[in-house]
Amino acid sequence: MYPDSIKNLVESFKYLPGIGEKTAERLAFSILELEDEQIEMFSDSLKEVKKKIHKCRKCNTLTDQDLCFVCSDPTREGKTICVVEDTKSVFLFEKLGMFHGKYHVLDGLISPLDGINPEDIGLNKLLDRINEEKFEEIIFAFKPSIEGETTSLYIKKILEDLNIKITRLASGVPIGADMEYVDSLTLERALNDRKVIE
Amino acid sequence: MYPDSIKNLVESFKYLPGIGEKTAERLAFSILELEDEQIEMFSDSLKEVKKKIHKCRKCNTLTDQDLCFVCSDPTREGKTICVVEDTKSVFLFEKLGMFHGKYHVLDGLISPLDGINPEDIGLNKLLDRINEEKFEEIIFAFKPSIEGETTSLYIKKILEDLNIKITRLASGVPIGADMEYVDSLTLERALNDRKVIE
Repeated sequence: MYPDSIKNLVESFKYLPGIGEKTAERLAFSILELEDEQIEMFSDSLKEVKKKIHKCRKCNTLTDQDLCFVCSDPTREGKTICVVEDTKSVFLFEKLGMFHGKYHVLDGLISPLDGINPEDIGLNKLLDRINEEKFEEIIFAFKPSIEGETTSLYIKKILEDLNIKITRLASGVPIGADMEYVDSLTLERALNDRKVIE
Repeated sequence: MYPDSIKNLVESFKYLPGIGEKTAERLAFSILELEDEQIEMFSDSLKEVKKKIHKCRKCNTLTDQDLCFVCSDPTREGKTICVVEDTKSVFLFEKLGMFHGKYHVLDGLISPLDGINPEDIGLNKLLDRINEEKFEEIIFAFKPSIEGETTSLYIKKILEDLNIKITRLASGVPIGADMEYVDSLTLERALNDRKVIE
């Protein structure tokens, strides 16, 4: 019923996560309102992104260079490594601007229920790096979840003979949250991890 | 901070209505997971859609032909014309499959507050058609809103000397709605338009 070019565009938008028929249609029609140069840039960047972007040789952060902007920056502090579950987390921390150490991006988190086992998340590359680069602290910055816990504990176990401080992000009640909307697991963690007011 | 090709893609997604920074980032990263052929199709259909799609010469429905699939279909009933506010409405009715007459797509609805006046919505083309094609009924299928009412009344006034039946879609409580979530205007309309149970 739709002309082919609209139909193809609707189908394309439906490839994206969380975008169903209705939204895809709305987005496809909205393309007709864009300027030619905007469409050109959109179309070109779609093709370019997969051609140019790959993992940093050292830390797996997505980059268009051989080494990512962190690994190639000689001013970064080299004693601390923050291990994350995906590249997006790297950019989250960088936007925050508070962390000046190195990163390592795993291929996701261990999740036996989804068939993701320890050998699937690229741990060897991380372990090689830890042996080579002599970090003093490893921070696990995974999402607070069973998968995050499992992955943290699994790596901690492997590293237990090394003399390295191993930490994780604090979890607890988010700033600004309404207490009644905080789930019970978070509340439990917040209670267990309670801190002395100084 | 992001590599250029990711940055450009994020910016491109932000051109789309209702897509902010966070969603644009999520969508941009999701492109990296697509197959090459999917990206190819997405990229090509973006460029094609604006080149190939234009308004039907007769009724303004978006099409890749000179006449849209309705205007070029000799089996459509020619006594009734359904006037809508955009092409999407045409496809909504066609998906329903209940209406077999013709359509006319206006360039939106009259909305003085937004600076959209009667001369801005392409009424002349509709009026010319009404004079030529001798319809027996005109259905206004606008969204129930001040703009929809204004546009209906304005066109009705122009046509009042012609011997044409002028109708609008029924409005009222949507099927399956919870009464407590029905807004008061809708409820008022449903009460005024109440029908005898036969």
